[in-house]
Amino acid sequence: MISVQELSQRAKIAAGILKTVSGQRRADALNRMAGKLLECKDAVFAANAEDIAAAPGLTDAFRKRLQITEKVFKYMLNRLQEAAALPDPVGELLEGRTMPSGLQVKRIAVPIGVIAMIYEARPNVTTDAAAVAIKSGNAVILKGGSESLRTNKVLADAMRAAAVEAGLPEDTVQLIESTDHAVVGELLKQEKFIDLIIPRGGKGLIKAISEGTRIPVLKHYDGICHQYIAPDADANMAASLIVNSKCQRVEVCNALETLLVDTACAERVLPVVAEALRGKGVELRGCAQTQKILQDCLAATEDDWDTEYLSATLSIKIVQNIDEAMAHIAAHGSGHTDGIITSSLALSERFIAGVDSASVLVNASTRLSGGGDYGMGAVVGISTDKLHARGPVGPRELCSYKWVAIGSGQLRD
Amino acid sequence: MISVQELSQRAKIAAGILKTVSGQRRADALNRMAGKLLECKDAVFAANAEDIAAAPGLTDAFRKRLQITEKVFKYMLNRLQEAAALPDPVGELLEGRTMPSGLQVKRIAVPIGVIAMIYEARPNVTTDAAAVAIKSGNAVILKGGSESLRTNKVLADAMRAAAVEAGLPEDTVQLIESTDHAVVGELLKQEKFIDLIIPRGGKGLIKAISEGTRIPVLKHYDGICHQYIAPDADANMAASLIVNSKCQRVEVCNALETLLVDTACAERVLPVVAEALRGKGVELRGCAQTQKILQDCLAATEDDWDTEYLSATLSIKIVQNIDEAMAHIAAHGSGHTDGIITSSLALSERFIAGVDSASVLVNASTRLSGGGDYGMGAVVGISTDKLHARGPVGPRELCSYKWVAIGSGQLRD
Repeated sequence: MISVQELSQRAKIAAGILKTVSGQRRADALNRMAGKLLECKDAVFAANAEDIAAAPGLTDAFRKRLQITEKVFKYMLNRLQEAAALPDPVGELLEGRTMPSGLQVKRIAVPIGVIAMIYEARPNVTTDAAAVAIKSGNAVILKGGSESLRTNKVLADAMRAAAVEAGLPEDTVQLIESTDHAVVGELLKQEKFIDLIIPRGGKGLIKAISEGTRIPVLKHYDGICHQYIAPDADANMAASLIVNSKCQRVEVCNALETLLVDTACAERVLPVVAEALRGKGVELRGCAQTQKILQDCLAATEDDWDTEYLSATLSIKIVQNIDEAMAHIAAHGSGHTDGIITSSLALSERFIAGVDSASVLVNASTRLSGGGDYGMGAVVGISTDKLHARGPVGPRELCSYKWVAIGSGQLRD
Repeated sequence: MISVQELSQRAKIAAGILKTVSGQRRADALNRMAGKLLECKDAVFAANAEDIAAAPGLTDAFRKRLQITEKVFKYMLNRLQEAAALPDPVGELLEGRTMPSGLQVKRIAVPIGVIAMIYEARPNVTTDAAAVAIKSGNAVILKGGSESLRTNKVLADAMRAAAVEAGLPEDTVQLIESTDHAVVGELLKQEKFIDLIIPRGGKGLIKAISEGTRIPVLKHYDGICHQYIAPDADANMAASLIVNSKCQRVEVCNALETLLVDTACAERVLPVVAEALRGKGVELRGCAQTQKILQDCLAATEDDWDTEYLSATLSIKIVQNIDEAMAHIAAHGSGHTDGIITSSLALSERFIAGVDSASVLVNASTRLSGGGDYGMGAVVGISTDKLHARGPVGPRELCSYKWVAIGSGQLRD
C-alpha cells in the first residue's frame, strides 16, 4: 500500500496532466466510468453485501446509507453520465476586455488541481465526487468510511480503468485503502500536493478536519432552515410549502426546522398549516403565542431555536413582523436556506436583501435549494461558507481561474 | 478604548446595515471621504510628520513607506474617487435561469460582511482598503502598523465622519488604535464577527496570521516571477520587456526574478538583453550555460531559483525547450505572474495552458499584472490563493454571492 504522501504526490502529477486534457476527453472518461461500473455491477453488489455483512451492530439508518440498492446504483451511473453531458466549466471565459494599451486581458476558469474528499458511509459519494471533480479537470483523492471500503475499492478500480481507457491518467481517481485512523491526519498534512479538502458528514467530522489542516476546506455544515409566513400569505400554499419543506425528507440539511409566522396572520394560517403537518405525524413545538392558537402544541424552549432536528419535529414561533423574522434567522439560522411565503413584492425584496443565507427562497420549498433544482446538475454538497463557493457545489465551483494577458510588448510606465 | 471584540461586534452590526445600502450611497460616501481628507490635509501631514519623527532609527526604505508625500496623498484621494466611479459590484446578476417548474433561480453578488485588514507601515493602505471594502458593501476593520498610528487615526476619523454624512454607519470603518501586540491575536479570534482577513506585508506576517486563525485569510504572498524567451522571440522586444519587468520597480511582488532563455535563441538574444540590463545596473546570476554566453555573469546557485530578490538582481537559466521552462516555473515559481515572449501562437497557447499561475502573460511586462492594468480599478492586493480570489483583489473579489429562488408554491417531488 503506498503512503498517503506518495498518493498525494501522484494526484498532483495527474492534475498537472489533467489541466491540459480536453473537455471532450474528460466527458468521455465519465461515460466510460458509467459503462465500466455497469459491466462490473455484480462485483459492486457482491462487495457491498460483504461490507454490510462485516459491519458490526448495524443500525437500520446506517445500513440504509451503506447499501447500494438497484435505485442507488442507477442513480450513481446517471450522475456520471449527467456530469459528462454538462457544459465544460474549464476554459470558460469569465470576463475579458482589451485595455487602451492594446493588452488583451481575460479571466479564464481552470481546474483547482487536487481535491480530497473525506466522507462517511454512503458509497455513492465515491462516484458523485469523482464525477464533479473530473468534470472540472481535477484529480480526486477519496477517503470514504472504512465500513464501505470493499464497495469503494470496486468502484474506484472501475473508474481508474475507465480513466486509462479514455486517455486520462490512472491517478485521476485514487482511493485511500488504509483504514488506520492516522491516514486522515496524514492527508491533512499534504498541503504541498492537495489544493482543497471537502469533508462530507456530521458537524464533528467537518469541524475536526477544518481545524486540523492548512489546506483550504469547503465546509458543508448542516442547516437550520426557516420559512417565514408573511401577513398576506395564502394559507393553503403555506401549508403545502411547509409540509414539503419539513416532510419530503426529514434527515437532510435543507429540510425545514423552524417555522416563523407573522402575528398578523397566525390565527388564520397556523391552524391550516398545523393540521397538514399533524397529518404527516410531525411533532410541533411552539412559543407561548403559538400554544394559544394550537392548544395541543408542545412548548418550545430557547434550545429549540438552535436545534437541527433532522427528524419529524418542527419548532414554531410567532413574530411581530418581517424584521423580527429576519432578526430571528440572523440569530439562530445557519445561513443555509431560508424562505418567505408572501404575495407582496415589497416584502419578498426586503427578505431577499435582508437575509444573509446561501439560498433565499420566495414561495418555494426549502427542499429545492440544491444543484438539480437550480439547474446545476451533479453537486458534491452545499457550502455554508461565504468565500469561494456558497450553496450548491458543482463542477463550476470546483474551478479556480487564471488571468491571461496577451500583449505585443506592452510595458508599465 | 473599546475591546477588539466589541469593535468586531460593531463592525458586524454595521455590515448588517451596509448590505441594504444602495450603491449610489456607498459611492457618495467614498467621494465624501476624499473630500473630507482634502479638508483635513494639514492634519494628515502633521500627524504623518509626528509619526516619522517618533519612529526610532528609521531606515530610508521604511521612511519612504511611512511618508505621505503630496504625490501619495493625491493618489490616496484618487483611489477613493476611482472606486466611487466603478460599477457597483453588489447585486450583480452572476447567473440566472428559469427552471422547467417555473422556479426563477438567480445567483447574485452580495457583500462578504466584515473584512479585517492587517498591514504594515504604508498609510495609503488605510484608504485603499476602505475604498475597496466599502465599494463592495463591506464593513472594514483596519489594523495598521503602530509606526503610522497617528496618521491612520486622522485618516480613519475623516472617513468615519464622511460615512456618517453619507448616511452610512459610522462603524463602516474602524481603526484598531491599540499598539499592544496582543490585539492582533484578539482579532484573529473574532470568527463570530469577522468574515475575512487580508494581511498585507512580509511573508512572515502573512504566514503567522493564516496559521493563527479559523477566519478565512486571503493570502498575498510575494512573487517569484519568470519570463521565458522562446526560440522565435524578437531580441529587442525581449530586452525591453525584461528591463521593464525587472527594473520598473524592483521591490514589488510582480517584478521579474528569474529569466528563462531557450537554448535555441540564447546566443542571439541573451547578449542584447544583458546589455540592456547592465545599463540599468542589474546584477546577473546565471547557470553554467549562461556564463558561457555572458562571460562577466556571476554563477547562480540552486538557491537563486527560489529567491525573490526584491532588488536589482536577476537570475538567468538557459532551458532546452518550453517544457523545461514550464517545469522550472512549476518547481520554483510562486504562482504569481509568469510570462512568455514569443510570436508563435502554438507556443503561447501551450504556455497559457501549462503554467498554473494567477497571471500568465504573453509579450507583456510582469509589472502589468495588477488591478489597474487589467481594468479593475482599485485593488487591495494580489492573491496567490487558488480558492475564492486569484490575482488582483478588487471590489468584485470582496463580494460573496447568494442564490435567490422565486417560486409560486413549487415543491420537491
